[in-house]
Amino acid sequence: MLYFHNDYNEACHEAVLKKIQDNMGKQMGGYSEDSSCERAATLIRQLCGNNDLAVHFLVGGTQTNLTVIAASLRPHQAALGVATAHINVHETGAIEATGHKVIGLPTEDGKIKPEQIRDTMEAHLADVAHEHIPQPKMVYISNPTELGTIYSLSELQAISDMCKAYKLYLFLDGARLGYGLAAKGNDVTFADLARLTDVFYIGGTKVGAMFGEAVVISNPVIAEDFRYIMKQRGGMLAKGWLLGLQYEALLEDGLYLKIAKHADAMADRIREVLAKCNYPLLVEGVTNQIFPILPDCILDKLQEDFTFSEQERIDQEHRAVRFCTSWATKEEAVDALCNALINFSK
Amino acid sequence: MLYFHNDYNEACHEAVLKKIQDNMGKQMGGYSEDSSCERAATLIRQLCGNNDLAVHFLVGGTQTNLTVIAASLRPHQAALGVATAHINVHETGAIEATGHKVIGLPTEDGKIKPEQIRDTMEAHLADVAHEHIPQPKMVYISNPTELGTIYSLSELQAISDMCKAYKLYLFLDGARLGYGLAAKGNDVTFADLARLTDVFYIGGTKVGAMFGEAVVISNPVIAEDFRYIMKQRGGMLAKGWLLGLQYEALLEDGLYLKIAKHADAMADRIREVLAKCNYPLLVEGVTNQIFPILPDCILDKLQEDFTFSEQERIDQEHRAVRFCTSWATKEEAVDALCNALINFSK
Amino acid sequence: MLYFHNDYNEACHEAVLKKIQDNMGKQMGGYSEDSSCERAATLIRQLCGNNDLAVHFLVGGTQTNLTVIAASLRPHQAALGVATAHINVHETGAIEATGHKVIGLPTEDGKIKPEQIRDTMEAHLADVAHEHIPQPKMVYISNPTELGTIYSLSELQAISDMCKAYKLYLFLDGARLGYGLAAKGNDVTFADLARLTDVFYIGGTKVGAMFGEAVVISNPVIAEDFRYIMKQRGGMLAKGWLLGLQYEALLEDGLYLKIAKHADAMADRIREVLAKCNYPLLVEGVTNQIFPILPDCILDKLQEDFTFSEQERIDQEHRAVRFCTSWATKEEAVDALCNALINFSK
Amino acid sequence: MLYFHNDYNEACHEAVLKKIQDNMGKQMGGYSEDSSCERAATLIRQLCGNNDLAVHFLVGGTQTNLTVIAASLRPHQAALGVATAHINVHETGAIEATGHKVIGLPTEDGKIKPEQIRDTMEAHLADVAHEHIPQPKMVYISNPTELGTIYSLSELQAISDMCKAYKLYLFLDGARLGYGLAAKGNDVTFADLARLTDVFYIGGTKVGAMFGEAVVISNPVIAEDFRYIMKQRGGMLAKGWLLGLQYEALLEDGLYLKIAKHADAMADRIREVLAKCNYPLLVEGVTNQIFPILPDCILDKLQEDFTFSEQERIDQEHRAVRFCTSWATKEEAVDALCNALINFSK
Repeated sequence: MLYFHNDYNEACHEAVLKKIQDNMGKQMGGYSEDSSCERAATLIRQLCGNNDLAVHFLVGGTQTNLTVIAASLRPHQAALGVATAHINVHETGAIEATGHKVIGLPTEDGKIKPEQIRDTMEAHLADVAHEHIPQPKMVYISNPTELGTIYSLSELQAISDMCKAYKLYLFLDGARLGYGLAAKGNDVTFADLARLTDVFYIGGTKVGAMFGEAVVISNPVIAEDFRYIMKQRGGMLAKGWLLGLQYEALLEDGLYLKIAKHADAMADRIREVLAKCNYPLLVEGVTNQIFPILPDCILDKLQEDFTFSEQERIDQEHRAVRFCTSWATKEEAVDALCNALINFSK
Repeated sequence: MLYFHNDYNEACHEAVLKKIQDNMGKQMGGYSEDSSCERAATLIRQLCGNNDLAVHFLVGGTQTNLTVIAASLRPHQAALGVATAHINVHETGAIEATGHKVIGLPTEDGKIKPEQIRDTMEAHLADVAHEHIPQPKMVYISNPTELGTIYSLSELQAISDMCKAYKLYLFLDGARLGYGLAAKGNDVTFADLARLTDVFYIGGTKVGAMFGEAVVISNPVIAEDFRYIMKQRGGMLAKGWLLGLQYEALLEDGLYLKIAKHADAMADRIREVLAKCNYPLLVEGVTNQIFPILPDCILDKLQEDFTFSEQERIDQEHRAVRFCTSWATKEEAVDALCNALINFSK
Repeated sequence: MLYFHNDYNEACHEAVLKKIQDNMGKQMGGYSEDSSCERAATLIRQLCGNNDLAVHFLVGGTQTNLTVIAASLRPHQAALGVATAHINVHETGAIEATGHKVIGLPTEDGKIKPEQIRDTMEAHLADVAHEHIPQPKMVYISNPTELGTIYSLSELQAISDMCKAYKLYLFLDGARLGYGLAAKGNDVTFADLARLTDVFYIGGTKVGAMFGEAVVISNPVIAEDFRYIMKQRGGMLAKGWLLGLQYEALLEDGLYLKIAKHADAMADRIREVLAKCNYPLLVEGVTNQIFPILPDCILDKLQEDFTFSEQERIDQEHRAVRFCTSWATKEEAVDALCNALINFSK
Repeated sequence: MLYFHNDYNEACHEAVLKKIQDNMGKQMGGYSEDSSCERAATLIRQLCGNNDLAVHFLVGGTQTNLTVIAASLRPHQAALGVATAHINVHETGAIEATGHKVIGLPTEDGKIKPEQIRDTMEAHLADVAHEHIPQPKMVYISNPTELGTIYSLSELQAISDMCKAYKLYLFLDGARLGYGLAAKGNDVTFADLARLTDVFYIGGTKVGAMFGEAVVISNPVIAEDFRYIMKQRGGMLAKGWLLGLQYEALLEDGLYLKIAKHADAMADRIREVLAKCNYPLLVEGVTNQIFPILPDCILDKLQEDFTFSEQERIDQEHRAVRFCTSWATKEEAVDALCNALINFSK
């Protein structure tokens, strides 16, 4: 069986494991107060071109989302995102469990539009009963989105401007950030993210690490006492240097974007074959997630050799599914999938 | 100025105040452990035809909703309602502040359909990643709904059956219950509600009391330790007998439904005039809330003498608004409104 | 049976009820946005000598405590009080239910000492693992305390100074405030409280109102968006003007302190008799709560005619109990209690 | 510098890393739904002699404590532990952040006594106002305790019996479980823990794993939907098999207790030297934590070469500190520490 159902089905890039191996037997300070985390944070500040950024390391995405949001909002404030946002649909109500409503706006491509932010805020402010409604205070976006699309620099700039105009925090979930920044046509950099958001993270779990998300905070209001909240939410890893080591391995020689680029290239090949076979996509994307609409009969055959995940039923004979590549995806596996697609569609 | 913008703009029915006056100077036990609350609870059990019901008195609607839901759900469980549900839009995230997601399903008339419950549950159960999604465990409905419509007995029966089939609690918000049970065409009784729901409440604040909501619980799982949770959520009134006295006044001679019927009749007169003037309604209703779609120019004139609340903009020249009658609405006020509608539409 | 077990066993002072009666039939705006609440707030600002104070009206004490604390603290922050603090022992974990730890420091007289605040903060700051410990951010005191004692002006000043030195909010629970400000020897005024605290409240439920607590906020950080949080926590009364009317009645002619003074005088008489009979007090107090230590055999006799509440067992034959007077306590009832004490102790 | 300030300052036992290395490149299912987690769970069920136990893998201790408690308690319920309990002092209010009060009872040796449980429950039940107090529903103990002591089988049995008598859950925090079960004089087994508690965990982070805590649940009420709550609290590791692999390595050949025994033996040697030098212990213990009371002048010298953590000041010239050994502690390091103690005390 070849796994295409997610991008976290192999342990980690060999360079990551090697870095851990090389540091076995060393005694280190606890809770990310160690030299490795400090080096990794410095690497990140350099990538972002800003020495004042707060950088913290957490283990997973849901943990990171709930910790950042708990650190940012007062009780009556809500996070604003698209209806398909990870925090809105796939975290078992983790944000609500911190007390905050998630407001999901309609989307077709997984992206929020600046006009949606403006309209929501104008409606809130105009409502004489606005104290009876959660106060939107943070815009949550993912890049790449849950649908594999990416924001352009000008889109991010417009969203950031809109957030500033309405005094909203901008939080960018970068669980798959590498696959976005490495994608064809991307014009966004780490430095842009640090400049345009109040807080974002550089996802490790899905991009070469065993686990780990590096949170980058430019807004001092959110940064204040962040470690208290990490600890409170169960997110402060005792052996924090394991996170530092992994980010050192991923960032010191550009490995992070290099392996992400490989995943995107593998996905591009699959997209090309799908196009050739005239299979439409649910959403056009440029990253490692592909959402083809395929006939049930083809999917039945594919699932004998390949894993993929279900997205939605389109009609009685077709459904949209998701294929994921990753830093670990082998060319031969992609060949096999492409050949199967071609053969079954004959 | 004549007030039609809500149904809680006068203190209380005179019989309610009289009952409080008559008991001035008496010394009473605290926290609803008194003879008046016990008599009121007995009246409610009699109305419902069930001596085993737990009855508790709270002060307001949001407080009641959040207390009942906190008492009912485990942390990962969600309440299922329509998108327009009060808990979803007008409680400043009170339910989320107890840690629970509210799932809002689409509606046109404010009512949930049994099929929506079934489809949501089937989708949840079929999802291989359902542990990543809040688990629906309670269906929250209002009767009358936020749009002034009411459930028929057969509709309630079908919803109740569906809830039982999927082991969901059914919670009926009766903030305006009187206006529903007293409406023309209603075929639902207090006893039906006690039989078909796990918990519901008989709203006092909007139906003749100064304040107060009487919670009626038939499911012992929800009833267990309910007073602890009332206290924890700030909802246990020190002088609880003030709630008992009000419900005694409202229920001992059928006053509750009698004054609700008056409000509905007043609303019917307004609806008749609107129909004569050919003004459409956003939603057909039979209770004390009316949602006409009126031209801006008429609304401009009306608001010089009458208050009403804004519902939504329909087009560039029309908007839907809400007129509320109540137990306190005077015939002369309705006459004035009807005359104004007729005059302005000439 | 004569009730001395609490100070909320009668409905309200007749002037309060009269004010409500006088306003029956008037149409008023909802949610405390009405002229009566505005007048009451103005009276409070005048009493406090500060026109910039935010004033909000809530229904009960636990509700007020949890709303103020939820409005004030970030998630990792704790409230610091004495072990006997109401929020620490008698609110069913209401503060914890908003996510915050209550730290209870030892006390003998119900009062916190400035040195305790300093020591707690110095220990926190000195601890290398302080991020693993909730961060104290608010000092919660009651005046009068749970043990009937009061703070002097110099004590309050010292606590306030200490709070400022460590950037802690000072929150004064005034559920029984009248009984403190009216006590013999008190040198604290409303204006002192407004000046020395960040937020305090003027308790109505226990001092002549049917219900109601008037929150007075001088710190704009806490005041910001306070109404959102009132609504979210279920504390925004629909017919808010009922609160405004009650505070108008209590404050417009000095009734509040006058009736509190009566209660204190009644308690003084009981204290005198206890002293004559050589019954010691658990704590010396000057307000309406009295904590005598009495032999079980006397208590057995007393409870045939008088209610009181249990405080703690002292030894095999004695226990400390609480007698409460209130604004409503009749001289004859005090006479009866005093006579009984004298007779039983012969 | 030689590290004795905690037991998590080295990455992991080599067998744990080897197991991960041996599985590099394999494709695995996400979220602990994989063959490795299943094998590890089976090993644990075998150790516990109970095939019906629910076994789940989490990353760290605070995360585990808050997830278990959130899964177990209704909102008004509290966890009962000793004042020194980890959840009470070193988790930044993590339990309170799930809404629950932690009640800390006095202790000298870190252990709770069955009588304390009984007295707390009897007082709660006897209090007429018990609905105003959080309801104790879970007893939380640690084995070994925070002070390095262990429970005997008869002590655990008595606590378990008391919990059953009052319908309390018994939750045993086993963050350092290995060091307890491997200690001299211990008579408790994994099977005893599974039989006597409702839920406990086998700590990995401090006993040879990189990270990981294996939760073992015998009470089906707590086990129900546990994975939803893991996900909601950010504790479900995407690459869950990394946890399974580590527990396989630790448990398949008895490695877990073997390396724990080494740590205890190293601590025993330090204890012997302390006894010879006549340095008293704050608490007598048998596990890997040692709490000697030493003169400041000696501690000043020791800290030039050794790390340790501060426990409390005893008098002007002495303080109690903590030395920790671990699975990774080298004999030479212990020799160095022992020699230093002997030399400095001459």
